[in-house]
Amino acid sequence: MSIERVAIIGLGLLGGSIGLAIAERAPEIVTTGYDRDPDVRKAAAARGLTNILLDTASEAVATADLVILCVPVGAMEAAARELAPHLPAEAIISDVGSSKKSVIEALGAALPGRTVIPAHPVAGTEQSGPNAGFPTLFAGRWCILTPPMGTDQAALEALSDFWTRLGARVEMMDPDHHDLVLAVTSHIPHLIAFTIVGTASDLEEVTRSEVIKYSAGGFRDFTRIAASDPVMWRDVFLSNKGAVLEMLGRFTEDLTALQRAIRSGDGETLHELFSRTRAIRREVIDQGQDDSSPDFGREH
Amino acid sequence: MSIERVAIIGLGLLGGSIGLAIAERAPEIVTTGYDRDPDVRKAAAARGLTNILLDTASEAVATADLVILCVPVGAMEAAARELAPHLPAEAIISDVGSSKKSVIEALGAALPGRTVIPAHPVAGTEQSGPNAGFPTLFAGRWCILTPPMGTDQAALEALSDFWTRLGARVEMMDPDHHDLVLAVTSHIPHLIAFTIVGTASDLEEVTRSEVIKYSAGGFRDFTRIAASDPVMWRDVFLSNKGAVLEMLGRFTEDLTALQRAIRSGDGETLHELFSRTRAIRREVIDQGQDDSSPDFGREH
Repeated sequence: MSIERVAIIGLGLLGGSIGLAIAERAPEIVTTGYDRDPDVRKAAAARGLTNILLDTASEAVATADLVILCVPVGAMEAAARELAPHLPAEAIISDVGSSKKSVIEALGAALPGRTVIPAHPVAGTEQSGPNAGFPTLFAGRWCILTPPMGTDQAALEALSDFWTRLGARVEMMDPDHHDLVLAVTSHIPHLIAFTIVGTASDLEEVTRSEVIKYSAGGFRDFTRIAASDPVMWRDVFLSNKGAVLEMLGRFTEDLTALQRAIRSGDGETLHELFSRTRAIRREVIDQGQDDSSPDFGREH
Repeated sequence: MSIERVAIIGLGLLGGSIGLAIAERAPEIVTTGYDRDPDVRKAAAARGLTNILLDTASEAVATADLVILCVPVGAMEAAARELAPHLPAEAIISDVGSSKKSVIEALGAALPGRTVIPAHPVAGTEQSGPNAGFPTLFAGRWCILTPPMGTDQAALEALSDFWTRLGARVEMMDPDHHDLVLAVTSHIPHLIAFTIVGTASDLEEVTRSEVIKYSAGGFRDFTRIAASDPVMWRDVFLSNKGAVLEMLGRFTEDLTALQRAIRSGDGETLHELFSRTRAIRREVIDQGQDDSSPDFGREH
């Protein structure tokens, strides 16, 4: 089984990057695209995000052998229901959502009997929309597939090959475990960043202009993450509620312990933690998940 | 009053960058350097961080008209006491510490009757030590001076001119207000980053290797900040305890409110906050405090 026609539904950062990555790395695959926002379709056409851009989702998927839903996880079920009557019988249906249990439920309900293989490429930037995508977004990043029990092996291999061709490294995972791992490595970091940026902008004693001016002390890195797409992230937190609340509980326990250490002047506890965390950074860099240049190689 | 001889005590990231910035932007100033660690002195000599490197602090400051203490804030008083008998009568004593009330107390106690003008250049990277500095660290960054009441105006202007020549923009601030502003824009972001990186590495359900692998989802940005110098940061939290605990209280209140919104499925509250925080990012970029390229311009 080989993938020759890919339909991309939703042409924001992820959908657009998939289209551009196919054009660059697998140009024999024909891509069709659709976005429900006419302005996004216009911008997508201007950038050539897909080979063919269509004005209805039904036309976009009509001849596809892989359909990728690149919409916020909260919009997944409605998008799938709209497509259902128009999908070719053999098509693989996949997505790029950041939570997987909820996507499996949504797509299972909307597309009974179809070949549904949820996927999550762990890649992105703080920008969104049809002008944000670029062809190398997935290079060297992991793409996690969470195939339901009984998934057709040929279809799974075809999807895995597809992501490998776009530059990603593919891993299989149980959806529950995926949601827990991503709660830690992605959802909680985003929640914390959104919170502290909100806290800082609401203070009475410190002006917003001061917060911006002196943001080079650490705060500015949080503003990048807190600039991520609001709708996408709202949906992530609501759809991965259990794992997010569980991990948030662990985080606040640890924060309370540090608060106590600061209050009681326990420098040893602080120093011990701060030394351990430094080692993690080295591993992130050693494994190619970040840039080794100091300060992210910002120009000085 | 003009500054012609600068003594740099402590040759890590900040001290080294000051030496290199002087060499590049104000080469007529003669720099002397000292670090209590002989290995650091050796590395500093090899990189030419100062014009003259000395084996004792007393020799390094003997003819200086500006002495800059670039040591962790907890080591400030001891360093100042060691220098006190050797300081020229007219020398300005300054520092680069991240908390200012505690530094004023420490230097006031150790150097009664001296011209002490604390300073905080809001700039740095996650790296530390004599090999971490570079001459453009302060370019476009703010340097906050917190002159005590009755500071000699000529000395204050000389120090202000000095930092301006190194590329920084200079601002005066009351030390209490400095400590509150920096608690928000720097200390709390660091504390949160140290905490979440620690939390993630201590989980039983998610392996450390998974945390590293999928760190591109947001976590990796926190690892950069959590790789900062452990001794420096231990001292910052202990020396700015009041403001840090106050701001931490605000943050955890806001985090609790978001936790409640997630638990109750209140998407509107989440969306409203996430939209506001995006606007802050634009201001940080507009004011030149960060890079506008997506994902910090990481190579893809």
